[in-house]
Amino acid sequence: MPESVSTPDPSLLSINTATVRQQWRLPDIISGCAALGIRGIAPWRDQVAETGLKEAAQRIRDAGLLVSGYCRGGMFPAIDGAGRRAARDDNRRAVDEALTVGARCLVLVVGGLLKDGEGRIASKDLAGARSMVRDGVGDLLEYSRSAGMPLAIEPLHPMYAADRACINTMAQANDLCDELGDDGLGIAVDVYHVWWDRELKDQIERAGDKRLLAFHFCDWLVPTRDLLLDRGMMGDGVIDLPLIRSWMERAGYRGAHEVEIFSANDWWKRDPVEVLRTCIHRHQTVC
Amino acid sequence: MPESVSTPDPSLLSINTATVRQQWRLPDIISGCAALGIRGIAPWRDQVAETGLKEAAQRIRDAGLLVSGYCRGGMFPAIDGAGRRAARDDNRRAVDEALTVGARCLVLVVGGLLKDGEGRIASKDLAGARSMVRDGVGDLLEYSRSAGMPLAIEPLHPMYAADRACINTMAQANDLCDELGDDGLGIAVDVYHVWWDRELKDQIERAGDKRLLAFHFCDWLVPTRDLLLDRGMMGDGVIDLPLIRSWMERAGYRGAHEVEIFSANDWWKRDPVEVLRTCIHRHQTVC
Repeated sequence: MPESVSTPDPSLLSINTATVRQQWRLPDIISGCAALGIRGIAPWRDQVAETGLKEAAQRIRDAGLLVSGYCRGGMFPAIDGAGRRAARDDNRRAVDEALTVGARCLVLVVGGLLKDGEGRIASKDLAGARSMVRDGVGDLLEYSRSAGMPLAIEPLHPMYAADRACINTMAQANDLCDELGDDGLGIAVDVYHVWWDRELKDQIERAGDKRLLAFHFCDWLVPTRDLLLDRGMMGDGVIDLPLIRSWMERAGYRGAHEVEIFSANDWWKRDPVEVLRTCIHRHQTVC
Repeated sequence: MPESVSTPDPSLLSINTATVRQQWRLPDIISGCAALGIRGIAPWRDQVAETGLKEAAQRIRDAGLLVSGYCRGGMFPAIDGAGRRAARDDNRRAVDEALTVGARCLVLVVGGLLKDGEGRIASKDLAGARSMVRDGVGDLLEYSRSAGMPLAIEPLHPMYAADRACINTMAQANDLCDELGDDGLGIAVDVYHVWWDRELKDQIERAGDKRLLAFHFCDWLVPTRDLLLDRGMMGDGVIDLPLIRSWMERAGYRGAHEVEIFSANDWWKRDPVEVLRTCIHRHQTVC
């Protein structure tokens, strides 16, 4: 921890449920977090569905957990009208669910290149995909604004541009907020996706408190052995986490520090209590 | 091939020797290219050293091959003065070798975060690494300019920011050219590294003919199973190659189309003649 950056407030720690999803179902994660004094959670839709929406929401409330984000909406590019309607309906349901669980925001992984009905990439038109994303977010905003659920665009690392999200930098996300209006729209900053970007400091400042809706932690391992499932625990990689946190705080961000680690061969194989204890410890010592 | 883009001139095809490095040594690659009518080559230093610099240069000349680039210099960040001197000496030797083989440019993979003597990452200071790269390129330019060997900065995909190159966008490379001066300095554009960048078209235009020293082809596979060794053959992935070529040509680029494919589990396991024939065919049909 650099001397110039203060230790994080432990009450800001939130656990994205993906971090222990291979070991525990949602009710276990909720009770596990509560038992260890963790105050926040960010659940995924499939886990919520498995538990049942109302029961999941009730358990989260009963445990006194803040919901730092709901994972996730998005995947806007669609090959035809039926696909667009299906995406629209599904995203509206995600907004409703986010409201029910009391989430701070609905996180949007916006989708990559256009896919066909079987999930194969059907077009190389990246600019076209980005237009579809703009239209899709704009359309969803009409619903989410009236519902009162903020949407958080998550810029994803460029290595996911083809298949997961064609919004790959903070600058792109900020431009989209400029274009569609700040009301009910902001950004989820995940260090894993944006740490490499030389514009990161400036774009966090540009986003400012109003747009900075979520802040996700993990670490970039060297070597990284898998594009999707080899994220590191904070402190085990190369990202200067206190530096990025200092930029977020200078911009006015006071929200949760959400830990989201996909780690097929390491943390997903460990005792989940050990994983959560490690999150607590690393949050205090290296973030 | 879109109707608006003409078929590439077959004589522009060049083979980066990494593409068949698991099957053939350099003399085989040279004769294999020549036998198939391929007119260009881009050799790696280790293969040249194995053959012997003078013999390699002689064989390339005898085969009538144009050398579209020499791989590679760079790796500037160094932990101490001895490391900096070693990097400087090695890069100057690379310039000399590039001259001997008659290369169009020396390609620079600039290096990532600072490493210790054992190759482990020793600092998370990404901005500091970028400063070291600027200083290192600037220092090498004094030598390469007087030697008459152009340096081509290769922006690498952001997934290599930690361990291979902290210059990750065309904008960064252009800025470095602005800062250090265009004389003897330019950019190697590899579609694999930059295809995702929404600024790509503008930054190619900004670079212009003078800075565009090399143009590398392969493809981005979905899924990509390895960060380093799972590049695709042109046409097997999602990159709109004719579109990027059209931007390069509009900017004035008339140089080689260099195929560079690292493919541990596919193309490196095939008959090298089949690989080269496929490069020739795909160059004419999907690039």
